[in-house]
Amino acid sequence: MTDNDARKSKSRRTREAIFIAARRRFAAHGYDGASVRDIAADAGIDPALVIRYFGSKDALFAEASDFKLDLPPLDSKMRGRAGEYMVQNFLDIWEGPDAGGAFTVLLRSAASNEAAAAKLREVFATQVIPSVAALAGTEGAQQRAGLITSHMLGLAMSRYILKLPPVVSMPPEMIVTHVGRAIQIYLDTPSDRL
Amino acid sequence: MTDNDARKSKSRRTREAIFIAARRRFAAHGYDGASVRDIAADAGIDPALVIRYFGSKDALFAEASDFKLDLPPLDSKMRGRAGEYMVQNFLDIWEGPDAGGAFTVLLRSAASNEAAAAKLREVFATQVIPSVAALAGTEGAQQRAGLITSHMLGLAMSRYILKLPPVVSMPPEMIVTHVGRAIQIYLDTPSDRL
Repeated sequence: MTDNDARKSKSRRTREAIFIAARRRFAAHGYDGASVRDIAADAGIDPALVIRYFGSKDALFAEASDFKLDLPPLDSKMRGRAGEYMVQNFLDIWEGPDAGGAFTVLLRSAASNEAAAAKLREVFATQVIPSVAALAGTEGAQQRAGLITSHMLGLAMSRYILKLPPVVSMPPEMIVTHVGRAIQIYLDTPSDRL
Repeated sequence: MTDNDARKSKSRRTREAIFIAARRRFAAHGYDGASVRDIAADAGIDPALVIRYFGSKDALFAEASDFKLDLPPLDSKMRGRAGEYMVQNFLDIWEGPDAGGAFTVLLRSAASNEAAAAKLREVFATQVIPSVAALAGTEGAQQRAGLITSHMLGLAMSRYILKLPPVVSMPPEMIVTHVGRAIQIYLDTPSDRL
């Protein structure tokens, strides 16, 4: 390894350490509650380096909250169980090793930070609506996606952010069954009734 | 009116002006985004008076976010439409003259402020669960209330806080019909299936 390679590799590691620390801090405390100083301390570096690597707190937040829904396409046989499938997928993201990742970052800050709210609106428009349209047709996709999201966001708020005791203690399969049924109804409602 | 009465009345008006300014600021910007200085400026008084009247920013927030669900009891004939009724009531609060009032204050801050989250958990335990128990029996009331809340909170987030376009533009009666049906299913699910 040349000196140049070693420098590049160290630089990559520093950037990665800042990114991980930022995502944890933003996820736990929201945009306003996470300072550049705290993020730098968690990453074991000088606060000036955070700015040198990412430009600004805003730019670091934008990167830490960059979010891909990544819903795999459903084949036609699964359509009748798409509601359950969507809820299971959602729980897997939140309860996976990354604990919601960028989605937690966004939801924690979206109510009090306009940049986070704008990003969630963008995810909704460019990822949620097209997924719902692929499942249930383009007609009424906006309304369906709106109804579905108004349940899923509240589920995430209740279980992971506010931690309402009965929602926290509900087994995942119970949530998949009940919330999945409500989502399925939203997918199946004829478009002339939306 | 004696001098003493006049002083008391002026003092009441100042307190009220601070309270109204605080509620607006907290509702629009969340706990962290609303400073005592801004609240005082809106109320047209010196910041020191905010502390003299309320003790601290925390105490002022607690008072501005004090929340009563105030769901009138349903008679037995209405039970089959309780879901629609609950959603209508919820929309009336948010779209009424007080624009959600203390509830907006709470929801705006709950994701990034532990005191607001704790208050929402308390409202859930002391007001939502008993209302649901009165409608659908005590058995399974916790789970039912959890499922219902996980939809209603997300509806408020989508429509009033994040302002997702299709949820914002949905007419109230459409929301009452669709979300009301989902809530009704949660009320009607037999407790041995919860």
